[in-house]
Amino acid sequence: MSLLVVGSVAFDAIETPFGKTDKIVGGAASYITLSASYFTKSVNLVAVVGGDFPKADIALMQSKGINTEGLQIKENEKSFFWSGKYRNDMNSRDTLVTELNVLGTFDPLIPDSYQNCEFLMLGNLAPAVQQTVVNRLKKRPKLVVMDTMNFWMDVAWDDLMKTLKLVDVLSINDEEARQLTKEYSLRKAAKKIHEMGPKYVIIKKGEHGALLFGEGKMFAAPALPLEEVFDPTGAGDTFAGGFIGYLAKKNSTNFEDMKQALIYGSTLASFCVEKFGWERLLTLTDKEVQERVQEFVKLTKFEV
Amino acid sequence: MSLLVVGSVAFDAIETPFGKTDKIVGGAASYITLSASYFTKSVNLVAVVGGDFPKADIALMQSKGINTEGLQIKENEKSFFWSGKYRNDMNSRDTLVTELNVLGTFDPLIPDSYQNCEFLMLGNLAPAVQQTVVNRLKKRPKLVVMDTMNFWMDVAWDDLMKTLKLVDVLSINDEEARQLTKEYSLRKAAKKIHEMGPKYVIIKKGEHGALLFGEGKMFAAPALPLEEVFDPTGAGDTFAGGFIGYLAKKNSTNFEDMKQALIYGSTLASFCVEKFGWERLLTLTDKEVQERVQEFVKLTKFEV
Repeated sequence: MSLLVVGSVAFDAIETPFGKTDKIVGGAASYITLSASYFTKSVNLVAVVGGDFPKADIALMQSKGINTEGLQIKENEKSFFWSGKYRNDMNSRDTLVTELNVLGTFDPLIPDSYQNCEFLMLGNLAPAVQQTVVNRLKKRPKLVVMDTMNFWMDVAWDDLMKTLKLVDVLSINDEEARQLTKEYSLRKAAKKIHEMGPKYVIIKKGEHGALLFGEGKMFAAPALPLEEVFDPTGAGDTFAGGFIGYLAKKNSTNFEDMKQALIYGSTLASFCVEKFGWERLLTLTDKEVQERVQEFVKLTKFEV
Repeated sequence: MSLLVVGSVAFDAIETPFGKTDKIVGGAASYITLSASYFTKSVNLVAVVGGDFPKADIALMQSKGINTEGLQIKENEKSFFWSGKYRNDMNSRDTLVTELNVLGTFDPLIPDSYQNCEFLMLGNLAPAVQQTVVNRLKKRPKLVVMDTMNFWMDVAWDDLMKTLKLVDVLSINDEEARQLTKEYSLRKAAKKIHEMGPKYVIIKKGEHGALLFGEGKMFAAPALPLEEVFDPTGAGDTFAGGFIGYLAKKNSTNFEDMKQALIYGSTLASFCVEKFGWERLLTLTDKEVQERVQEFVKLTKFEV
């Protein structure tokens, strides 16, 4: 089934203990669409870039089956730019630069050809913009997944609460779940988030994996313990892209399939962190994905 | 098979956001033996207490099938005492009081009747004392599991390195594994710990579960997400007791059985935190344990 993805397409400059990059392709929607494209060839992007964004990278997206009809190009403006530096533990980072540029006035226009998408992924953006996307769809998708971050809790609480009422699945990290609900227990936090709207809650815990809550059930997906995390940028978005891409491929909103989707999302994320930016995802093969999924099976399987 | 447990038997006074206790039974070996006693009725304790330790609590241990012949009672001295206060997140705590008392001069005497134990659990103690226990056994047990903490890395590094060479399994938390190896990646940390001696490494991650490394394999057991953690004291020792108790019951040192043992250890630990001290463990039934193990199955099982 077709998937609509809205989010940032941007430039990142990243410094890790292993090296640093110039401006490379970044942004939530870049990772989400690329990750999802491993599962479905009907991925439709809504985003905005400036005239500085390389046409070659747009062509690269298209070559992966990503429809860029909804990618607005503001020729006389600059793309969103983020720069950050990871600390030695790779678990925390400092933001060095944030330049909103085109993202500051982003009006998410939906091409007519996107109108019947059945899966919608709202990548991290201002909640008001996410809400606009839902409202501009003539038919509600069968599954709406939303990502957000603590920043919006601080500056756009009311918008966030309104947007949460419109979505089926919230994907959020553990620290953000605690901030959103004022609950330390993630199980209690998930309950409160259900009351805010989303029937399903995914709590991302980085190197500790992710939890899925919904229909009174819980599922825990571990992260694959890795020898080396080279660059964590985009791992959460890659995870989300794998999650919704897998569900779109299966055309399912069923809890059992969501569990599998969580494993596939974790699998894609485990590749993402092996190189800078989205580089590793560009060369990923089906065989590599299937082999790593089997590593997750080995990692978690037990008989009692 | 019979299990020998050495460690502290002590008094704790605990304060959590939910309440506080007077002096209650605490100590690594108290939790380990009680937890193990759910799996095997051949649990042999080596520890030391003062004359202030209630005979009724010793009788309680005996009623659970714990052999206390190796529990030394120093009538004119006082038991080890620890007091701590948990912060609101329950994930960090401040130590208010540590009185070594009898533990300061603990000489771990092994009763003759304990000599043929096939499973040995070295609870957290000075590494030199742990080493003495191994050296005093005429026959090496088929499995030696050791717990330790960051304190010993700071004050008894050389002893710790010597003791590590004598054990099969090291059980340690993630922060301690990183301190011990100077590696942030837990997979790399486990490799370095293998080089220090232990063929198997369990890395405990609290609310994020535990990882088992050995024979070139990895296994991830989640912790059960709980609505409420009432008192985390003893959870790690309860986990270790369940782990080795289950293996002693099965008379196995096999990796597949260790995976099951990790799930049983996590199950017992999930009960431990529901009440103060070891209170919840005292009333635990087989039916409750089996039901909760099934919750772990549901939490982790997926088909791909």
